[in-house]
Amino acid sequence: MDAIHRLLKPRSVAVIGASADPAKTAGRPVSYLLKHHFAGDIYPVNPKVGAIGDLRCYRSIDDLPAVPDVGIVLLGAERAHEAVRDLSRRGTAAAIVLASGYQEIGDEGARRQKELLDAAGPMRLLGPNTIGLVNLTDGIVLSATGALEMEQFPVGSVGVVSQSGGILGAFLSRASARGIGVSKLISTSNEADLELADFVDHLVDDEATRVIALYVETVRNPLKFRTAALRAARAGKPVVAFKIGRSEAGAQAAVSHTGAMAGADRMYDALFKQVGVIRAQSFDDLLDVSAALATGRRLKGRRVAVLTSTGGAGTLVSDALGVAQFETPTPDEPTSRALRALQTGDHAVLDRNPIDVTLAGLRPDLLRGAIRALLDSAGYDALISIVGSSALSMPELVVGAIHDCMDASDKPVLAYVSPHAPEIRALLNSRGVPALTTAEGCAAVLGAMRQHDQWEDAPEGQGCAPIQLGDLPKGALDEAKAKALFAQFGIPAPREAVVSDAGEAEAAAASFGARVALKLLASETTHKSDVGGVALNLGAGDIGARLEKMREDVERKAGFRPEHFLVQEMVTGGVELILGMHRDALGTAILLGAGGTGAELLKDTTLRLLPPQGGMKPQEAHAMLRELKTWPLLDGYRGAPKCDVEALVAAIVGFSRMVAQLGEQLLEAEINPVIVLPAGQGVRAVDGVAVLKS
Amino acid sequence: MDAIHRLLKPRSVAVIGASADPAKTAGRPVSYLLKHHFAGDIYPVNPKVGAIGDLRCYRSIDDLPAVPDVGIVLLGAERAHEAVRDLSRRGTAAAIVLASGYQEIGDEGARRQKELLDAAGPMRLLGPNTIGLVNLTDGIVLSATGALEMEQFPVGSVGVVSQSGGILGAFLSRASARGIGVSKLISTSNEADLELADFVDHLVDDEATRVIALYVETVRNPLKFRTAALRAARAGKPVVAFKIGRSEAGAQAAVSHTGAMAGADRMYDALFKQVGVIRAQSFDDLLDVSAALATGRRLKGRRVAVLTSTGGAGTLVSDALGVAQFETPTPDEPTSRALRALQTGDHAVLDRNPIDVTLAGLRPDLLRGAIRALLDSAGYDALISIVGSSALSMPELVVGAIHDCMDASDKPVLAYVSPHAPEIRALLNSRGVPALTTAEGCAAVLGAMRQHDQWEDAPEGQGCAPIQLGDLPKGALDEAKAKALFAQFGIPAPREAVVSDAGEAEAAAASFGARVALKLLASETTHKSDVGGVALNLGAGDIGARLEKMREDVERKAGFRPEHFLVQEMVTGGVELILGMHRDALGTAILLGAGGTGAELLKDTTLRLLPPQGGMKPQEAHAMLRELKTWPLLDGYRGAPKCDVEALVAAIVGFSRMVAQLGEQLLEAEINPVIVLPAGQGVRAVDGVAVLKS
Repeated sequence: MDAIHRLLKPRSVAVIGASADPAKTAGRPVSYLLKHHFAGDIYPVNPKVGAIGDLRCYRSIDDLPAVPDVGIVLLGAERAHEAVRDLSRRGTAAAIVLASGYQEIGDEGARRQKELLDAAGPMRLLGPNTIGLVNLTDGIVLSATGALEMEQFPVGSVGVVSQSGGILGAFLSRASARGIGVSKLISTSNEADLELADFVDHLVDDEATRVIALYVETVRNPLKFRTAALRAARAGKPVVAFKIGRSEAGAQAAVSHTGAMAGADRMYDALFKQVGVIRAQSFDDLLDVSAALATGRRLKGRRVAVLTSTGGAGTLVSDALGVAQFETPTPDEPTSRALRALQTGDHAVLDRNPIDVTLAGLRPDLLRGAIRALLDSAGYDALISIVGSSALSMPELVVGAIHDCMDASDKPVLAYVSPHAPEIRALLNSRGVPALTTAEGCAAVLGAMRQHDQWEDAPEGQGCAPIQLGDLPKGALDEAKAKALFAQFGIPAPREAVVSDAGEAEAAAASFGARVALKLLASETTHKSDVGGVALNLGAGDIGARLEKMREDVERKAGFRPEHFLVQEMVTGGVELILGMHRDALGTAILLGAGGTGAELLKDTTLRLLPPQGGMKPQEAHAMLRELKTWPLLDGYRGAPKCDVEALVAAIVGFSRMVAQLGEQLLEAEINPVIVLPAGQGVRAVDGVAVLKS
Repeated sequence: MDAIHRLLKPRSVAVIGASADPAKTAGRPVSYLLKHHFAGDIYPVNPKVGAIGDLRCYRSIDDLPAVPDVGIVLLGAERAHEAVRDLSRRGTAAAIVLASGYQEIGDEGARRQKELLDAAGPMRLLGPNTIGLVNLTDGIVLSATGALEMEQFPVGSVGVVSQSGGILGAFLSRASARGIGVSKLISTSNEADLELADFVDHLVDDEATRVIALYVETVRNPLKFRTAALRAARAGKPVVAFKIGRSEAGAQAAVSHTGAMAGADRMYDALFKQVGVIRAQSFDDLLDVSAALATGRRLKGRRVAVLTSTGGAGTLVSDALGVAQFETPTPDEPTSRALRALQTGDHAVLDRNPIDVTLAGLRPDLLRGAIRALLDSAGYDALISIVGSSALSMPELVVGAIHDCMDASDKPVLAYVSPHAPEIRALLNSRGVPALTTAEGCAAVLGAMRQHDQWEDAPEGQGCAPIQLGDLPKGALDEAKAKALFAQFGIPAPREAVVSDAGEAEAAAASFGARVALKLLASETTHKSDVGGVALNLGAGDIGARLEKMREDVERKAGFRPEHFLVQEMVTGGVELILGMHRDALGTAILLGAGGTGAELLKDTTLRLLPPQGGMKPQEAHAMLRELKTWPLLDGYRGAPKCDVEALVAAIVGFSRMVAQLGEQLLEAEINPVIVLPAGQGVRAVDGVAVLKS
């Protein structure tokens, strides 16, 4: 058994610094272990105490009669590392360090955390600054925190890993009230050693865990996280993450909380999406989405039946579903027939959706019949049953009817509880019917279920042979050199020529036989147009004079006399895009955006993190294109010709291969714009920058 | 006293069709009146019953010993109109008709509803298909619905008007559980007579009501609603609305529910915003926003202090605040000093925000001190206090500390309750501290409070004298005529001339001395470019030949030989926008959008409903511009010259005056594009359409 397994299900636990007083924080771990009938050995360690209840208390770790699987260290930061060293020396599998005063308080704390980690040696470490963990499956509490104290745990199949202890307590409290069952609760906090990814990886194999729920402030080791999350996704075990740091304000708070540096939020979005992690948009969604995915049901489409006995609430839910792009079609003819056969009475509305059975909703046989008819219907992928105030006096009727019908179908069934009725909600959840109290929550849960069903394993990078590049230039490349680099990866520039004087410019323009642009070519400035270094739409007849004027303009404005210019064929009639890269702690992303003001002011961009090795595959590039709001422009908007999407896909793939192959050598790269011409005519990198390591 | 006042606070109530069995629906109204000690007279009417308890039961309405203020009609749809007629004849102020089977079931029901309304004559009518109303202020229940039954009502200051009875019940149930107090609950449902706007207008004057909360499916009478809402806004009494029909699916459901046609959602957004109605984004927000506004506190800025004793929850809240564009700045120096003086201990984090007082959060003196310091701080506009799990065992400590400090400040104070602790939430709300259980809810509440504080009374239309227009053309105008119409309202077109042959075209182009566009001018088609009817960037030298070619192209493609063409100076170097109008059941709106693909694919548009009379004022046009995501393009983006915003504002105002003045005569009008040139150079209506009544 590996150390994490022993940490979560120890056969013996040493409690370093245990108090005999269960009212004190240091008295709680032993008290909690006893209360939940821990079957293994408990070794309190405290030189000042002889015994705690019936348990012998040891003077020191060296005095322990056997090597514990886990040591809970209750000492303060100034002494915790000594206990950790002693535990490690004895061969303990893992230690839990509760003390604060480490990384989260700044440099001095970071030094202390390093010392703690060194002291642990090969022993694994949870914390410091953690509230510990609870293995609900086996009733094992390794914590000193009142927030994890509970008479009766809501045992179930959601495994929770949180970078905040406080959030873990809130999760347990709320889950318990909602009837959502939990398998494991783990607070990783400072993550000096064990981190989110370690527990995700462990829980993939934990039979009691059907869904892994994460509270994330930062992912410290993206590669490890990626590997663990992909393993979960491939095993069909959903991972749901609520990640804060969505705003700068939130990011600051995250820093103050666990010393974590929050990465840019959109990079997280991309990472999560690519490795099959479902992102919850709120803390409550984290609970409800996890509970729904724990049913194991798959949502195969977007058509939802809403069954109600009270008008307003059904409308509320179907409105929220519509906002979230779900459909609530009216019952098809066979379903209508089945509903009418139930004889639900005059007031029932059976030919619309919400399907309103009115008072028949209080007759169990009719309610069961309606639920069965809707679950049997080929026209629906899921059912939401509305629980109205009439159910308050007879919860068993409604809950029982829904529950009884579920086995006959594998479609998702949710309940929306309209009045305040926490006991009905808990009853439903505990019987495997995800129960929500907000219409938006219903939509969020179905959205997550759909996302889970639709996830496709991304290919592990484009395994092409590297392009032979010869000697690479260094530093900031001028436009011609940047485009020459891009061209080596299959991204063509317009016809162009580097010229030095009017005569060469005239010859180039004449040879192209088309209108041309004239641009300054100099590594001295990247802002050509600011210094008068761009002129468009010239002919062979006027380009010479224009070149001389540009030379003078630039000299006057930028203070140097340019020697080289680019004569470039004008490209007209295509759609402009931006293709670039972005690198941060999470990895390297390829960014595609609408050209002009679309990307910047209208935020029409999308991005993909590159896999650890290789570039993107064409199907990923295709998927990116379709995520742009301006995708219709490429697809033949308003009768315009379709653009050369295949050429654009090849350009994105080529760009990604360049980024992957050059790795750390490539500091920046952007093609802006890349113009996509009508089908068959390809793309052109009209302008671009690249910065290589010097 | 007017009829609505007597309806809400009757001195006598007749119950038509009352049953002596309180377990039956028809037995409830009398039973509810008695239970809550109705002080006036109760007249049960039922020919088959002699007495209900101590109350004499009357054979008919004609037998009643006095004219009742209100009649509750419990009869079915087939007989309700008879009772209504009898009540009206006796001079009853208002009747409540509970029966269903009217407008909501289709044509037959609509006919029946008309009959019911006719029967009511001058008597006011609530319903049909309503669950009635509850006046909580005075303990008067006029309903037969179990959902409005409650041992103890949560009496308070939120007046609720709902177009769905089921939603009203859910509101009451949830408000009660949360400790949110309600003044009046009114279900308007089919609104044969009395509608939302009537009760909004009434509640403006109701002293017990400090906030008006609405559940809206449709606004039947926009002008009346506008008037009532504006009266509330000007009186400083907030109106909060949750409106469904945000999606097409929801809109269908609304139809099925009360027979209401839901108008386009963005028009509602504009209406609400303009008349000071705060739109809740979810049903739960409707409750929480209303409760927060009921405190009467004003949010004067966006800087929020988050006070916590548990890290994670504070981070959660500050993250959600950041997403909603609130700021959570660190304490300024005087505030930091005040916090440090409290000596909250080593672990407290006082120089960041969330301000984490850790365990000091459990010491009432320290907690009070911290709250006071933050409320006193010039650096904060509001405070959110986090209630963690440690408060579970001592709710009074936390609740009391927050409550005690509130009187010393008029800034908004919210509480976020992190664990499941419904009793603490209710305790806080009942003491005037809005308490939330979601971080997003906190942000939504503060957003609504800020919106309420920032609302400015819109001017009641531009009171200019109408433009003298002479005879108006009719039908679909060609481009030249449309632009001539726009020009009369001060919106200039580029220099242009209508021509019939090559010679005239050459002369026009030569006279402009600039590149020109040539366009087909014909009312036969509005899709000029589809039939080869547009050519750009021509000179006097080539326009003649091009005109002849266009004539042939159009004849071949469109089947008619065009006689007229427009020669128009090319406009370059400005920013393109779309300026148009939209009319639906709610009124007429002016729409402004980004040009090109911005408006359509990237949805960069904004709209304003015109006031009942007159056009827009310049300040409103200015505000519209700033709502566009592409506003920076007009304001000197990336060193480009600023655009002529004043001229654009004048064009929007002129366009709005045209729409207002022409009224129903103008079926459609759009300028697309209007090009805004650099400052001082004005705008140009480059193309446009107008359709007038034939």
